[in-house]
Amino acid sequence: MHLFWGSGSVPCFRPMIVLEEKGLSGYGHKQVEFSKQEHKGEDIMALNHRGQVPTFKHGDIVINESKGICQYLEDEFKSQGTQLIPSDAKQRAHVLQRMFEVDNLQDKGVIGVMYAQWKEKDLKPEILEERKKTLAAELSIWEGYLADKPFICGEQFTMADVFLLPILALFVRGSLSLEARPNLKKYYESLSERDSIKASWPPHYKTSPPTQIFAGV
Amino acid sequence: MHLFWGSGSVPCFRPMIVLEEKGLSGYGHKQVEFSKQEHKGEDIMALNHRGQVPTFKHGDIVINESKGICQYLEDEFKSQGTQLIPSDAKQRAHVLQRMFEVDNLQDKGVIGVMYAQWKEKDLKPEILEERKKTLAAELSIWEGYLADKPFICGEQFTMADVFLLPILALFVRGSLSLEARPNLKKYYESLSERDSIKASWPPHYKTSPPTQIFAGV
Repeated sequence: MHLFWGSGSVPCFRPMIVLEEKGLSGYGHKQVEFSKQEHKGEDIMALNHRGQVPTFKHGDIVINESKGICQYLEDEFKSQGTQLIPSDAKQRAHVLQRMFEVDNLQDKGVIGVMYAQWKEKDLKPEILEERKKTLAAELSIWEGYLADKPFICGEQFTMADVFLLPILALFVRGSLSLEARPNLKKYYESLSERDSIKASWPPHYKTSPPTQIFAGV
Repeated sequence: MHLFWGSGSVPCFRPMIVLEEKGLSGYGHKQVEFSKQEHKGEDIMALNHRGQVPTFKHGDIVINESKGICQYLEDEFKSQGTQLIPSDAKQRAHVLQRMFEVDNLQDKGVIGVMYAQWKEKDLKPEILEERKKTLAAELSIWEGYLADKPFICGEQFTMADVFLLPILALFVRGSLSLEARPNLKKYYESLSERDSIKASWPPHYKTSPPTQIFAGV
């Protein structure tokens, strides 16, 4: 089992949490430096023509899509470690709903606010302001979902938390304030102390100062 | 079982194919007219605060995320009709990889080219041209995947086809030419004749003229 990954990548963070939850700690891995274009290195390109991380190998099986890796690991190691997708139909539907619903935070936060500041050269301040408001409204929905619950789907840590926490961590790293969002704050602080998440935490979040990408959202 | 859906929505098309493949034809449904804002109607809002389709109800279970509905139906009706996610680990990994890899077509085609023409008021022609080239390059990857195969993962129709075909149909509807893409052309023409896909085909694709959104890609 071998994982190529990069620090701060949400799609890498997720399967790393799953690997820990499944008791697969100690898997083979290589951290690539994006700034050195190591994700386009020969070792990764031989397995993944897109030259992206995560790139994951399990025996002769290669799978590179983050959500696919998470699902694959859950299926292969269902009864090992934490069961991340419940057996009960109603609970499972709830987890599946929230897992994919997290893409709203991806679209409004990562694409709408973060990539926009990196890539859109003519981005007008009022457009950025508007998009930050859209992200804030989306965060209010998740604040509501978390009322009186330790995890996003209730009393158990599930794949929906695996999908949600890394994107929330990215926002906080980018100076999103959780002060007026008490449920998200409690959730974030509590999950940050979970073993699987601590073990997978992006190294450079610990060693370099935060960005201002999500300040004022 | 009840599905709220809209014509031409890729996220609606996918679970509709799954329902047919699982032999659930005849399920309760309501087609909403986007132009009349029917997706924001009371019936949908009572089940889905986002006011979006698909909105799907199965007994007291509600699930609205398209990918989640597809996974839910596959799990609940695993041995009924077509098995869409293989039991064999290697085959399953392949299907999971392609299912989520389709998001590249979504990002480069639907967001980069289609929404751009709808929403970006100051979109420069040279930027649109560049994005069409990016989409064409992405399509070449899928053209390669389909060499000598009837389905995207080989000899069997799988969930990866459920995810791929509707987006390809959207592109063709928008005047994407498949003439220089023989594998995609054969795949598209063959799958268009499949019962589950014919039964789920967006009604307005049959009755109104094509758009030019993907012309020249």
